[in-house]
Amino acid sequence: MLWTRKEGDVHIFKGHFLDIPNRRVIDGEMHIRQGRIAAIIPLEGIQADAPYYLPGFIDSHVHIESSMMVPAEFARIAVEHGTTGVITDPHEIGNVLGVEGIDFMLRSSKLVKFNFLFGAPSCVPSCNAAFETSGAVLDGAAIEELMARPDIGYLAEMMNYPGVLNEDPEVMRKIKAALASGKRVDGHAPGLLGEARRNYAVAGVSSDHECATTEEGRECIEAGMMLQIREGSAAKNYEALIPLLSEYPDRIMFCTDDCHPSDLIRGHIDRIVRRAIRDGYDIWDILTAACINPIRHYGLDWGTLQVGDPANFTSISDLTPTFRVRKTYIRGVKVFSQNSYFKSIESQRKSIESQLSMLNDYPNRFEAEPLTEADIALPVEAGDDVHVIMAEDGSLLTGHQTIHVTGNPFVDAQHNWGEVQKIVVVNRYTKGARPAVGLIRGFGLKDGAMAATIAHDCHNIVAIGSDDRQLLRAINRVIKMKGGAVATAGDEMASLPLPIGGLISPLNGHEIAFRSTELHEVVKRAGCPLHAPFITMAFMCLPVIPSLKITDKGLFDSEHFEFINK
Amino acid sequence: MLWTRKEGDVHIFKGHFLDIPNRRVIDGEMHIRQGRIAAIIPLEGIQADAPYYLPGFIDSHVHIESSMMVPAEFARIAVEHGTTGVITDPHEIGNVLGVEGIDFMLRSSKLVKFNFLFGAPSCVPSCNAAFETSGAVLDGAAIEELMARPDIGYLAEMMNYPGVLNEDPEVMRKIKAALASGKRVDGHAPGLLGEARRNYAVAGVSSDHECATTEEGRECIEAGMMLQIREGSAAKNYEALIPLLSEYPDRIMFCTDDCHPSDLIRGHIDRIVRRAIRDGYDIWDILTAACINPIRHYGLDWGTLQVGDPANFTSISDLTPTFRVRKTYIRGVKVFSQNSYFKSIESQRKSIESQLSMLNDYPNRFEAEPLTEADIALPVEAGDDVHVIMAEDGSLLTGHQTIHVTGNPFVDAQHNWGEVQKIVVVNRYTKGARPAVGLIRGFGLKDGAMAATIAHDCHNIVAIGSDDRQLLRAINRVIKMKGGAVATAGDEMASLPLPIGGLISPLNGHEIAFRSTELHEVVKRAGCPLHAPFITMAFMCLPVIPSLKITDKGLFDSEHFEFINK
Repeated sequence: MLWTRKEGDVHIFKGHFLDIPNRRVIDGEMHIRQGRIAAIIPLEGIQADAPYYLPGFIDSHVHIESSMMVPAEFARIAVEHGTTGVITDPHEIGNVLGVEGIDFMLRSSKLVKFNFLFGAPSCVPSCNAAFETSGAVLDGAAIEELMARPDIGYLAEMMNYPGVLNEDPEVMRKIKAALASGKRVDGHAPGLLGEARRNYAVAGVSSDHECATTEEGRECIEAGMMLQIREGSAAKNYEALIPLLSEYPDRIMFCTDDCHPSDLIRGHIDRIVRRAIRDGYDIWDILTAACINPIRHYGLDWGTLQVGDPANFTSISDLTPTFRVRKTYIRGVKVFSQNSYFKSIESQRKSIESQLSMLNDYPNRFEAEPLTEADIALPVEAGDDVHVIMAEDGSLLTGHQTIHVTGNPFVDAQHNWGEVQKIVVVNRYTKGARPAVGLIRGFGLKDGAMAATIAHDCHNIVAIGSDDRQLLRAINRVIKMKGGAVATAGDEMASLPLPIGGLISPLNGHEIAFRSTELHEVVKRAGCPLHAPFITMAFMCLPVIPSLKITDKGLFDSEHFEFINK
Repeated sequence: MLWTRKEGDVHIFKGHFLDIPNRRVIDGEMHIRQGRIAAIIPLEGIQADAPYYLPGFIDSHVHIESSMMVPAEFARIAVEHGTTGVITDPHEIGNVLGVEGIDFMLRSSKLVKFNFLFGAPSCVPSCNAAFETSGAVLDGAAIEELMARPDIGYLAEMMNYPGVLNEDPEVMRKIKAALASGKRVDGHAPGLLGEARRNYAVAGVSSDHECATTEEGRECIEAGMMLQIREGSAAKNYEALIPLLSEYPDRIMFCTDDCHPSDLIRGHIDRIVRRAIRDGYDIWDILTAACINPIRHYGLDWGTLQVGDPANFTSISDLTPTFRVRKTYIRGVKVFSQNSYFKSIESQRKSIESQLSMLNDYPNRFEAEPLTEADIALPVEAGDDVHVIMAEDGSLLTGHQTIHVTGNPFVDAQHNWGEVQKIVVVNRYTKGARPAVGLIRGFGLKDGAMAATIAHDCHNIVAIGSDDRQLLRAINRVIKMKGGAVATAGDEMASLPLPIGGLISPLNGHEIAFRSTELHEVVKRAGCPLHAPFITMAFMCLPVIPSLKITDKGLFDSEHFEFINK
């Protein structure tokens, strides 16, 4: 059975049309002309197994950098899952490259047919520049310029909520710039309740993706904000927040925040939709959150499958928890078809690749040069107190242990310290900077090391290893690649080069996912018991989260907000 | 430091040149003109860290189909590992498509610069056609035609060694055709010793990759044959055979036989070379086996890095067990460079994809149509004896259990049979053929199923599942895709479409590897304890291996070589 046909310049689709704003199904035909919906005509006798058409799913908050793919490649895979648009914050590449990074994301997003709304990252760097070295700073003036641009759609993730509540002038300047341009300000305020939550909303912040309990979610909505239910690769809040969907179907959006390469390949917002269907939520409530609310909240011209709307839509096999995405169209152009999977992949990859190669060089900031053993020495003598970061599986928090060195430190280390290992952070933005060297427990590497330029939020080089030889192998390979991730175990070495800002690869998503899986397997073979070792390592550098962290400037006590002078 | 430069139409390489036939290193410069080595000029003062040049590694026996990649894609990844050529037997696609399949492999191998020597599969089908339905037959006449063609380089894998020893006329006709054309006959004779081994060699078979013990290996060599040390994804004989290398360096070649997608991405013949270096074998012995012997044995014009040879070579960082491949050249053209990884990948994939799309439709033979529950019913009554295939992890052999049904078979099944499940084989070459349904133990699937068109050697559809619903979901998805592999667990479904003969995907190797890993993970989530479930399932159909097997024609007792009439 063919569900589509052409008549002149009109493309006609037959099936069940989900008119979500009016909560009804129209059986019939849809006419597309010049990228817009020209008509939806009710018809009798549409077969039960005809496709269901809907305006496509929207991810209301995602850092594309977490997929390690260029935006065009992210989109190519997202449309396979029925996604037609994303609201995206280039926060990571902003920390490395500032406006140049944002511009690269915008430019490369134009290589495919997809709907992107790019925000301006509001908090670059996340912390005081005295505590760590980032690649860029986006101050109030920079944000004013960005908010005035038509291609920047909102102010992203205002995580400095104490700054909002204390009316910090630089913070208020950024918010004012957004509101004055008629653009939304996104929030990020874990645990904010009561009056503080209401003041945060009154200041102009109108959405939050950090709510983790039903209570927080309810307060967020009742303060007038949109609640974003996040179910991504790292944080998962579906279970706590989904009960609010039936009560507030117009106040909820779905998002992933971070979406790692393997996860994006497996599914996107469609996974949340399937799960909510399986859990028995009303289909119209689910689709309102998944397809309609982001379009309304951000005032987007992406369409909701009404006559006159741009023809952004997807078709699915049915409305059960096992529905399959059949086809996806952006502005009337087919960008995915399950039936011609190979053809659509080939032609899209070809177009991305040839256009990527015209973007000239990949933007990056990378000044670090190969290290020697002397650079990562950590002199310890009897009588010293050494501070050890205690990593915990699945947590951004760390413990802080102090060991008093009594006898010969090397003998001590072998016999009494357990599996304490070196952690090294190298400032990659300044040539010849002295690396910070600390001690860490919890990674359990045996004859192996790991190193990466994904290290929140400044994205310097961070590395952990069983010994200096393996540490240097891993770090120097990352330096040779000018960014990326490396794992070693014995003679083995796996690597994922990330030439775009040390965060993103121009390769196809499956190669990125494969290499990223390899990295984890090598680290596992080296004996690391952690569930997500590279993510855990990436957060060892974030000084705003307690207790003990390490930046390129040294060991940092995140409880007292000061460096430790060893 | 730049190790290469151009002077007019001459490309000049500087470094250490491994002259393997003469077992010496020449420090100096190599001049390449018009794809050939014009000169190798000794020079003083070549730095120690300069690259080492060698003629590249050769896989002396591989079924490219096991990588599920088209030959061009296989080559694109193999050159990253320093491989410059393969001797390859299109046995799997031969069973599906006969000469048409071989021609597809030849055509698509021309899309990249690489050295392929294609053989004619000698045993298609592997068994009597009364026992199972294959897609094609290559009889003596067909082989005579193939051996006369200049693009067919040898007669591959004569596994019907009883036929050779008994001088079966059809078998002898095939061997005669090869020898008359001056082409080699490859062997396959596990466990063949003494006089039988010598007679096999005297008949004209001149190599064997099936030796699994040092004794077998020695007899093989002493009978005058080349010994192939196989270390692939499935069979691994390195440990047993490598001790023979020092004694017979001119009589040994390396091969993988089967190389699954993830494995090929991780390494190829270079892995065997690294391991032998680590194990302390003489570097000249190792490189003679890895680079020179296949060229001599098959009389190939691929070159051994001598003046006048075609410029097929690779450069590596050093001669330690951790050497890295830096660059690979085929006929003077750079096909891989570690330094410009992205560029070389992009341009090669682009060329493969655009050329693949010109090959028109992918060849296939697929007539099966969706099944219903009635098609896979297995009526069992009290008093019946039912036969159960006992699968074993990591073995091609199966056990044979007979269960006498006493009471209500369904109650019996639940309480006394343990985890007996249905196995279904569907003839995919004949429309409307009735599926064979049997019972199997060992896959342990709970609310899940697996199905695939990789099923040795006829490559019909084979499927195993916890219940009829899951079985039909998996089988009918494979049928809808017209070939491929599918796994289900609960609502989940993973799939790998293989539109080329039901064996090969036109996608890039990393996507194939990723999808193939996904399949295994879904099967694992369904509770299957096997190490390589799809490979184990694929051998459940091979009637030549004992004890109990199942073909599209029914349950087959491989000990008595007859069908079981249930």
